[in-house]
Amino acid sequence: MSDSPEGAASDPDAEIMRATYRALQEHGYADLTIKRIADEYGKSTAAIHYHYDTKDDLLVAFLDYILDRFVETIHEVETTDPEQRLNLLLDKLLVAPEDHHDLLIAVLEMRSQAPYKDAFGERFQQNDEYVRYMLETVIDRGIQEDVFVDADTEHVARALMTIVDGARARAVVLDESDTLATARRTADEYVSAVLKHETSERE
Amino acid sequence: MSDSPEGAASDPDAEIMRATYRALQEHGYADLTIKRIADEYGKSTAAIHYHYDTKDDLLVAFLDYILDRFVETIHEVETTDPEQRLNLLLDKLLVAPEDHHDLLIAVLEMRSQAPYKDAFGERFQQNDEYVRYMLETVIDRGIQEDVFVDADTEHVARALMTIVDGARARAVVLDESDTLATARRTADEYVSAVLKHETSERE
Repeated sequence: MSDSPEGAASDPDAEIMRATYRALQEHGYADLTIKRIADEYGKSTAAIHYHYDTKDDLLVAFLDYILDRFVETIHEVETTDPEQRLNLLLDKLLVAPEDHHDLLIAVLEMRSQAPYKDAFGERFQQNDEYVRYMLETVIDRGIQEDVFVDADTEHVARALMTIVDGARARAVVLDESDTLATARRTADEYVSAVLKHETSERE
Repeated sequence: MSDSPEGAASDPDAEIMRATYRALQEHGYADLTIKRIADEYGKSTAAIHYHYDTKDDLLVAFLDYILDRFVETIHEVETTDPEQRLNLLLDKLLVAPEDHHDLLIAVLEMRSQAPYKDAFGERFQQNDEYVRYMLETVIDRGIQEDVFVDADTEHVARALMTIVDGARARAVVLDESDTLATARRTADEYVSAVLKHETSERE
């Protein structure tokens, strides 16, 4: 542990994940190799293979790692007010952190490989289910508290994820900040239309 | 021309495009080679290289070809009623023709390559602009005829394309018919909210 470049708190898995992140940002998915990840890790490829048999195993772990990071940021949303909480969730889903663009590109590449790699597909499905579960929970809460009108919660969560995935797919080809801003506004308009009481429907 | 397997009306370019379509359906983007396209074409790789210098040149032409086919189906929409016309456009954008799934996967793969291949990116941008132009035209017409309320036409077109691209991205990872049906319903709800007069707002 003492040779960790990022402090004693790091474990090898987390370090390899951070190295993968940097290697993906630099080389993209198609040109990613265990050698390039090892270079970022500052160790030999054998040190990587000790933890992960294949590049795909490592990338599946990386998808889990991204999901975990995302879940952590979601748990930072501390408000219990359903309307505010839904807003903040949509912010997290649709506002790009800095230096995020290369990761977005790499994730879209992995996503496009899902039909050929079951383990990738499973992670994307799991990720989607988890985020929809969080959206459904806050929407159900809002309906119970009469902050939102009665609605088909499952459909609304799927609709919002369609907008989120659309924004991400468009960000790779078009201007990222525009596509995310458009999607954020669209999500607001959609939430107003299907969840808000009449009075607040048209600002 | 007489050796065309698909009738005298075929030209070599169109035949090569159809061969590319079949090769993509069978092998996917990553495993696509000029040899495999030539096999589908029923001629030598030299016959392909006579028309296209590289695989990327051919694939750029293929993206144009798909756009042209889509524009043709759009021109089949004969109604001039803005509400009906918008509905039919959304149907075309969000209802999958049979055997369409493999093409959807191949197109998402090409889309994920856009950051590395400018010519791919240009085609996707051009395609997006053209479809948004068609959506804007019908929405503007509807506003002029007072079928729709006044709205930010450009934003509404971008919002609808976000839903369309989201559905396509999700279809590759999740169940295709579900994601397209969800997106179609979301598009309807969105159109009702931002374009329809109050009376028809909540069915």
